[in-house]
Amino acid sequence: MSDVRIDDLPVRDELRGKSPYGAPQLDVPVRLNTNENPYPLPEPLVERIAERVREAARGLNRYPDRDAVELRTRLAEYLTRTSGYRVGVENVWAANGSNEVIQQLLQTFGGPGRTAIGFEPSYSMHALIARGTGTGWISGPRADDFTIDLPAAEKAIAENQPDVVFVTTPNNPTGNAVPRETVLALYEAAQAAKPSMVVVDEAYIEFSHGDSLLDLLEGRPHLVISRTMSKAFGAAGLRLGYLAAHPAVVDAVQLVRLPYHLSAVTQATALAALEHTDTLLGYVEQLKAERDRLVAELRAIGYEVIESDANFVQFGRFDDAHRAWQRILDRGVLVRDNGVPGWLRVTAGTPEENDAFLDAVRDIKKEQSE
Amino acid sequence: MSDVRIDDLPVRDELRGKSPYGAPQLDVPVRLNTNENPYPLPEPLVERIAERVREAARGLNRYPDRDAVELRTRLAEYLTRTSGYRVGVENVWAANGSNEVIQQLLQTFGGPGRTAIGFEPSYSMHALIARGTGTGWISGPRADDFTIDLPAAEKAIAENQPDVVFVTTPNNPTGNAVPRETVLALYEAAQAAKPSMVVVDEAYIEFSHGDSLLDLLEGRPHLVISRTMSKAFGAAGLRLGYLAAHPAVVDAVQLVRLPYHLSAVTQATALAALEHTDTLLGYVEQLKAERDRLVAELRAIGYEVIESDANFVQFGRFDDAHRAWQRILDRGVLVRDNGVPGWLRVTAGTPEENDAFLDAVRDIKKEQSE
Repeated sequence: MSDVRIDDLPVRDELRGKSPYGAPQLDVPVRLNTNENPYPLPEPLVERIAERVREAARGLNRYPDRDAVELRTRLAEYLTRTSGYRVGVENVWAANGSNEVIQQLLQTFGGPGRTAIGFEPSYSMHALIARGTGTGWISGPRADDFTIDLPAAEKAIAENQPDVVFVTTPNNPTGNAVPRETVLALYEAAQAAKPSMVVVDEAYIEFSHGDSLLDLLEGRPHLVISRTMSKAFGAAGLRLGYLAAHPAVVDAVQLVRLPYHLSAVTQATALAALEHTDTLLGYVEQLKAERDRLVAELRAIGYEVIESDANFVQFGRFDDAHRAWQRILDRGVLVRDNGVPGWLRVTAGTPEENDAFLDAVRDIKKEQSE
Repeated sequence: MSDVRIDDLPVRDELRGKSPYGAPQLDVPVRLNTNENPYPLPEPLVERIAERVREAARGLNRYPDRDAVELRTRLAEYLTRTSGYRVGVENVWAANGSNEVIQQLLQTFGGPGRTAIGFEPSYSMHALIARGTGTGWISGPRADDFTIDLPAAEKAIAENQPDVVFVTTPNNPTGNAVPRETVLALYEAAQAAKPSMVVVDEAYIEFSHGDSLLDLLEGRPHLVISRTMSKAFGAAGLRLGYLAAHPAVVDAVQLVRLPYHLSAVTQATALAALEHTDTLLGYVEQLKAERDRLVAELRAIGYEVIESDANFVQFGRFDDAHRAWQRILDRGVLVRDNGVPGWLRVTAGTPEENDAFLDAVRDIKKEQSE
């Protein structure tokens, strides 16, 4: 029986020969590969989490609040406070990571016989979740400098008439933000082709020099802004993603969400973290400064760098990015090879981690020029 | 903009006019409607959860263990210890509730162009998750006494050639277990039609008079046993479902699982609960005795009752089950109308809750005969 493999099972044809998604998890001193926040939660927040989870555990024999009303209310308040645009509980939906949010959106608005488009390179889970939900995937174009080439993007939308359009801003893995007017134009293009949903993935927006596009929700019921607590809230381990949209969108995803998808301990932990928003946003300011330092120093060393509004930086160019990735790893620093030819991505870590990274890439540059 | 409704959005056609799944959540004194375990977790376990979550929270800025190796190892040990059949970490996969386990299985082995069959009435989420994953749903037959009519079931499998066969044992909402030889025959029928996966949903198996079917996994790579910590572990709020199967099945679902789907706090809480297995299984024994008492007393009152191997009992018959449901609710007791004509389902609660329920249905019976 030990000789049975995946392909011997009656799996779907499109899964044959595939490997699970995921960055290599290697045990190295400096891990700057998955855009995690390097700052552990402050101890008072850790205690508050323990306290709120203890309380939740006393009722753990009961199903959690299926609609996560308290959590969505607090998330709405956070969005309102940080954007100045009024968001209510009826505009917010939460799930286990923004991946599950996106999965629910594609189950609702994509799926078999429908298509979604993204402008690549971008967050690769969009395409993978499309595959997982039976949604056809269209790889839209991007300019050589990794900005969205608007005429080309509009043409791709007009030709393909996708049901869902993904716009990631700041974009991952390239780091650059998409200008507001580009997002607006893409929304218009998507409506002109046929009524389509536009999902603006703002996972890294708190690190941006610019503002969130939340206020664009006004009068645009086909727009969805997706967010996460993984990055700015330093809670990648929590798996809490959320969206803001017209209340009808929030109603619609509830047709496909698994009932009680969000556990009582997840809700309790997220609520605790939201109580400490100001402290956590303080770390974000430190990370933005470090990110800017990385950009400046990488350029000083002689690398090409894409302008970054995220907590990571894409840098290059390398004749062989994977070989460069390995040479940085040999120096104890794990960065990410996202498969963008010639480029690597580094997450902004603590000042010490960033120094270690900069030392490593300085070394490599020196060897190259010798 | 407030006049935009779900059906004004470009949702999938099959979602139009649908409502979200979920039992009514009403605030009544005695809630016996969702098969929750009535016993809160013991205080030492609550403390242990707080302790393990505090530890996990200190590393919450990092992604959780993507493969949940420690948790799967402990779950495998639990299965081995309680079934006598050796299950290893490589045989176990875990997700946010058995609903997510089933969703991953259908994304892997079902999906567009494929079908799944269940023998209804049964756990209604099987059909709903099929819809959510684009899997065609076939409603298989059941005999009048809610047992699986094997020749009719075999015929349905031969005719429809489903890709996935669901067998729920003990069955929900009817409570009866499916005999081992019936499951074996269904597995054979499913293989004869074409190589198909058979998912045995054992969510309530710990409450059964009989044994788990885990040992049937030996030599049957197309068999999957699904389980949950919601019921026997008294942790509905935790959302921890899992499966046992051939390692190739565990490998296969990783092709569709969302990366890092299981949060660090969920993993920590589940690990704490598994440390207290013996105490929790003690509650299960109490609930089994109460379940047997419910069956006996309901019969003494004059109701028809389906033999139950679960923590709930299906009873009837009513000319109008929904009206009976309302009359029981009027007496402060919430039971479940699963839409099975003539029948209602009651969860075994604490002795006091069950007494309140029995008083209510005794009343109603008296009124009927007056």
